[in-house]
Amino acid sequence: MVVVMDSGAGEAQIEAVIEKLNGFGFDVHRSTGVNRSVLGAVGVKPEFDTRRIAVMDGVSDVFRVTEPYKFASRSWTDGPTTIEVGDVTIGGDRVVVMAGPCSVESEEQIAATAAFVASHGATVLRGGAFKPRSSPYSFQGLGSDGLRMLRDAADAHGLLVITEVMEVGHLDEVVAATDIIQVGARNMQNFPLLKELGKAERPVFLKRGLSATVDEWLMSAEYVMAHGNPYVILCERGIRTFETSTRNTLDLSAVPVVKSKSHLPVFVDPSHGVGIRNKVVPLARAAVAVGADGLMVEVHPNPDAALSDGPQSLYFEQFGELMDQIRIIAQAIGRTTDQPHVARSL
Amino acid sequence: MVVVMDSGAGEAQIEAVIEKLNGFGFDVHRSTGVNRSVLGAVGVKPEFDTRRIAVMDGVSDVFRVTEPYKFASRSWTDGPTTIEVGDVTIGGDRVVVMAGPCSVESEEQIAATAAFVASHGATVLRGGAFKPRSSPYSFQGLGSDGLRMLRDAADAHGLLVITEVMEVGHLDEVVAATDIIQVGARNMQNFPLLKELGKAERPVFLKRGLSATVDEWLMSAEYVMAHGNPYVILCERGIRTFETSTRNTLDLSAVPVVKSKSHLPVFVDPSHGVGIRNKVVPLARAAVAVGADGLMVEVHPNPDAALSDGPQSLYFEQFGELMDQIRIIAQAIGRTTDQPHVARSL
Amino acid sequence: MVVVMDSGAGEAQIEAVIEKLNGFGFDVHRSTGVNRSVLGAVGVKPEFDTRRIAVMDGVSDVFRVTEPYKFASRSWTDGPTTIEVGDVTIGGDRVVVMAGPCSVESEEQIAATAAFVASHGATVLRGGAFKPRSSPYSFQGLGSDGLRMLRDAADAHGLLVITEVMEVGHLDEVVAATDIIQVGARNMQNFPLLKELGKAERPVFLKRGLSATVDEWLMSAEYVMAHGNPYVILCERGIRTFETSTRNTLDLSAVPVVKSKSHLPVFVDPSHGVGIRNKVVPLARAAVAVGADGLMVEVHPNPDAALSDGPQSLYFEQFGELMDQIRIIAQAIGRTTDQPHVARSL
Amino acid sequence: MVVVMDSGAGEAQIEAVIEKLNGFGFDVHRSTGVNRSVLGAVGVKPEFDTRRIAVMDGVSDVFRVTEPYKFASRSWTDGPTTIEVGDVTIGGDRVVVMAGPCSVESEEQIAATAAFVASHGATVLRGGAFKPRSSPYSFQGLGSDGLRMLRDAADAHGLLVITEVMEVGHLDEVVAATDIIQVGARNMQNFPLLKELGKAERPVFLKRGLSATVDEWLMSAEYVMAHGNPYVILCERGIRTFETSTRNTLDLSAVPVVKSKSHLPVFVDPSHGVGIRNKVVPLARAAVAVGADGLMVEVHPNPDAALSDGPQSLYFEQFGELMDQIRIIAQAIGRTTDQPHVARSL
Repeated sequence: MVVVMDSGAGEAQIEAVIEKLNGFGFDVHRSTGVNRSVLGAVGVKPEFDTRRIAVMDGVSDVFRVTEPYKFASRSWTDGPTTIEVGDVTIGGDRVVVMAGPCSVESEEQIAATAAFVASHGATVLRGGAFKPRSSPYSFQGLGSDGLRMLRDAADAHGLLVITEVMEVGHLDEVVAATDIIQVGARNMQNFPLLKELGKAERPVFLKRGLSATVDEWLMSAEYVMAHGNPYVILCERGIRTFETSTRNTLDLSAVPVVKSKSHLPVFVDPSHGVGIRNKVVPLARAAVAVGADGLMVEVHPNPDAALSDGPQSLYFEQFGELMDQIRIIAQAIGRTTDQPHVARSL
Repeated sequence: MVVVMDSGAGEAQIEAVIEKLNGFGFDVHRSTGVNRSVLGAVGVKPEFDTRRIAVMDGVSDVFRVTEPYKFASRSWTDGPTTIEVGDVTIGGDRVVVMAGPCSVESEEQIAATAAFVASHGATVLRGGAFKPRSSPYSFQGLGSDGLRMLRDAADAHGLLVITEVMEVGHLDEVVAATDIIQVGARNMQNFPLLKELGKAERPVFLKRGLSATVDEWLMSAEYVMAHGNPYVILCERGIRTFETSTRNTLDLSAVPVVKSKSHLPVFVDPSHGVGIRNKVVPLARAAVAVGADGLMVEVHPNPDAALSDGPQSLYFEQFGELMDQIRIIAQAIGRTTDQPHVARSL
Repeated sequence: MVVVMDSGAGEAQIEAVIEKLNGFGFDVHRSTGVNRSVLGAVGVKPEFDTRRIAVMDGVSDVFRVTEPYKFASRSWTDGPTTIEVGDVTIGGDRVVVMAGPCSVESEEQIAATAAFVASHGATVLRGGAFKPRSSPYSFQGLGSDGLRMLRDAADAHGLLVITEVMEVGHLDEVVAATDIIQVGARNMQNFPLLKELGKAERPVFLKRGLSATVDEWLMSAEYVMAHGNPYVILCERGIRTFETSTRNTLDLSAVPVVKSKSHLPVFVDPSHGVGIRNKVVPLARAAVAVGADGLMVEVHPNPDAALSDGPQSLYFEQFGELMDQIRIIAQAIGRTTDQPHVARSL
Repeated sequence: MVVVMDSGAGEAQIEAVIEKLNGFGFDVHRSTGVNRSVLGAVGVKPEFDTRRIAVMDGVSDVFRVTEPYKFASRSWTDGPTTIEVGDVTIGGDRVVVMAGPCSVESEEQIAATAAFVASHGATVLRGGAFKPRSSPYSFQGLGSDGLRMLRDAADAHGLLVITEVMEVGHLDEVVAATDIIQVGARNMQNFPLLKELGKAERPVFLKRGLSATVDEWLMSAEYVMAHGNPYVILCERGIRTFETSTRNTLDLSAVPVVKSKSHLPVFVDPSHGVGIRNKVVPLARAAVAVGADGLMVEVHPNPDAALSDGPQSLYFEQFGELMDQIRIIAQAIGRTTDQPHVARSL
């Protein structure tokens, strides 16, 4: 932590700050410039609230020098983390595609989707069983039945399963049925849930909150990791800005930013950020071009009849074209979309 | 719902939209202008996803005409709702002040605070027992012990109690110990929690999420109300914007906006929005001037030693001065801060 | 400037940074902690682009220690600046009210407004002659005729005049006709205009840009001051956020923030921020309560027929009530709205 | 325009609105639903301020049905607009790359840059001569000398020239020296400048303002077009959001959004949005993948010594690699980066 004193700060004020810092157990280095003094405090713990110093008399600014997270930081490991789930490697050279409907609606719907996306290169089947809906009057998902349908459809086509958990009470059931557990944007700071996920034996797919900074997002990853689970996959899905012509603003810059701050894999979900089908495809291409480790995309056999988020779900043909385009884009940056596990889908 | 067709939309496209609307059970009125046709759909349910029509060929724009909420809407009742808790009326002429520390830390701390704020006109004691902290390494609250200390301190001084609940598993315990239950900004869209609060026999104090629009905030109130609990108090506490010189941007315009859209009482918490003590007082005054039904303010007997949020907690003297100032400001707009229940604090 | 090195930065990287800093003419103090080194650079000029150091190998973070502005900084003078214009003091104990229509439309309109607002305590008459309009098809103002009408109406009632200048080519004409020159939000970073205003012999009323941070706003004040004009009045008028239920979000926190960073007076214009008449009055009250040095409010004798911004202009009665309310609110914080120059309006 | 009445609106209120609408010259269609009436107003002019109706008693909502712009709207022409400048086609199948330094600093610097970028596929040379700087103390550009150096360097390598104009007084000089005139983000709503550009015989490259919605951006294009110049090229360069880990947030969704609303070509400038060199390249790739008609990228022969924006300028090698990557990405979506005018650079 670096404490910058006001240019007019008196000696008594400077000494009060030093004493306070020592009281918190920090070593203090003082440099006295022509105009103002600067204090370097060494040994600051990540959770220290720097405002405690900022409010003292004579203090101009306080800067945190260390990140507030440890396990999520790039300096925690030597290189990028890869996560092996079944025979899929997340965070490696291969761009991993997770696809499926917003909600599981029926066995036919999820089976048809699984068959199609598997044959076009997706390796993970997504689908909602417990749905967070901003209206109490909307379809809330099929629950346990949905989980079973999702698992069956995935197994039939050699796909992994990802689904969202919304509350601690559903966690065991969701863990039993899925390979990767999704935390939705609205739960990114549901701390009791994050703590429990720290004990779960599944990788956690952590969507960025609508108004979360990259540092806050990494702090939520830290919650999961500090409670015992090192397998966190981050997913950008759009932030809230003043622009209303899209549902949210997909922040693709977050991909290289996360890569410079953390060793964790980072995905992009263009469906929720953009909200309208015909804009999902270009943004999905851009996500691969910017360097995302994977995509999560909503696909539905009949989007016009979908019970939720139909307008942002791709038609099968669109998904096929998208896969063709990103195959080339991935190559342009030294990656691939081909998966080495084709044998599995026998 | 109003559907505006493209100026170049063909008759077949218009008819396809009408057919689709009829299929959803809506009556459709068509007006054909010189340049474009406009369709009015009657009978649209609040949860209808208007994007289902927006993605159709030839459609230019779709506007929702009815609000997506019913119980939270101003048109649901004749006038503003008042909520009686003990002998305190919330939403009436009196500006209600809820004050206390961020976290309950000890019997002495909470007792001293209760004594001071009660003697200066507060009627509700606030204090955190289960704390949502963005770092897994920060103080997480005293839990059940904290709840008991809070209740005891409040009872000793004739105050009501408000505290936050973070998860469904704690709900019974919190209900037993408090008069009003707070939902924090990060849980504003924790739908499983909102549903359970719909069954709780306590008023719910619903903080606005950092990136929630007023309509989304009212939808969360609707969740609670639709599940059976009509007693919701809204609280503005700052939204996330590009400006970083304050922790968040306190959106005081939200007070008159909520009053025009809903019958529910609306409070302001300036402490979290501003984040630095010496700016809390002016914003608290402004909140009363803009017409808030009450304030929630953090006060601590020794903010410099507080275990959480000390830098934004007021010193006792500051709280006393604030109460003196808002007494006058309330009068300027035909309200009062004096409470009629002084006898209670015997 | 403080440069924080990566925890893994090598000695060669640290020395390269020191050499670079020396090359820019800075003195460097080095502190070597357990985990990382921190470099303090003394003598950094305000315009130095800190990213020049941030992109070097081994650098983790760079913090600017001095503000990028000098004349606008609170440390430039001993106390708050007051500006005398005619017999009106801006920035003193008295809350100054500037009122009038969005656009000057006719002699009758501006004369009626001047008479009314003068008799209710306003001391400055506002009105647009050259109008910035986001549509090329909207009313663009009466130009020179408008300026003359504005001056005449103000003189007849002992009021000062404020109007907006949009381009350098109009500056002489506007200076000749007005007492205070307004720079609109969209021109806050029109640097050629700010430079010329630095040479103008009139105080400059500088509205905050819709997406300007407080520091950027103060930098624009610095432009005017660095070019020779020390008389700058700041005016908050709403920032752009995700919330659309008001036209902009009035950032009242900016008032105490500016007061802690600068010695310049700060006003609030609630009309543009809120955009709807019945919400202007409560926000105007809040602006006085938060400590603004004055208000700018749109008032029109017949808002329903106004050629611009009618929906946000107050009716005369509303303005009168507002003045009554803020008189009391000003007293609550030790200020007054009464002006000592009543004799002038003979 | 569609006017939705309150559910409780009385007949007198409805008739007052109809009368008002008729008074403005609109035809009104009324549909009376079970709960509320909806009025369709036909003949609304683009500049009509819908708040005039919104403030009337009994009115719930007002929606603008037609866009506020005409010439900029997609419906104005049959397909996308292409602009021919010299032998470069903007808005066609070829992705056009504009590259060069932030500021022209010397003949050597600009000549070296021109030679390099021309040999790697750029067709337009960018460089600032008159610079908008947020600090009055920063390098303000070489002015007329810079313009001449830019022109000479471009001519020597068969490149077109683009540079920014900041004020009306410089317009003739800039027109004489350049092929395309740039309007910076801070001048996007400098209406006097836009009007003059409407008379200029050069295409206008209009950067999006930091807090401009897509509709406001198109309104600024409309300003130029309505004053006589149909050749406007739009350029997304990052919007202001709460996220501070990048300088701005590059809104790549704006590319498909603009394409659905307007016929004008749209470019992306990743340098200003991201602000740090090593994140510029991935975002530039993403911009091509999302469907931009071209890129504007800052390149400098020695970024570490640049007088402005060095930290976001690419090294020559980086630019070369970027061009190699986008060649492949362009092919993935049926476009090309190869220019048919190689012969020109004799």
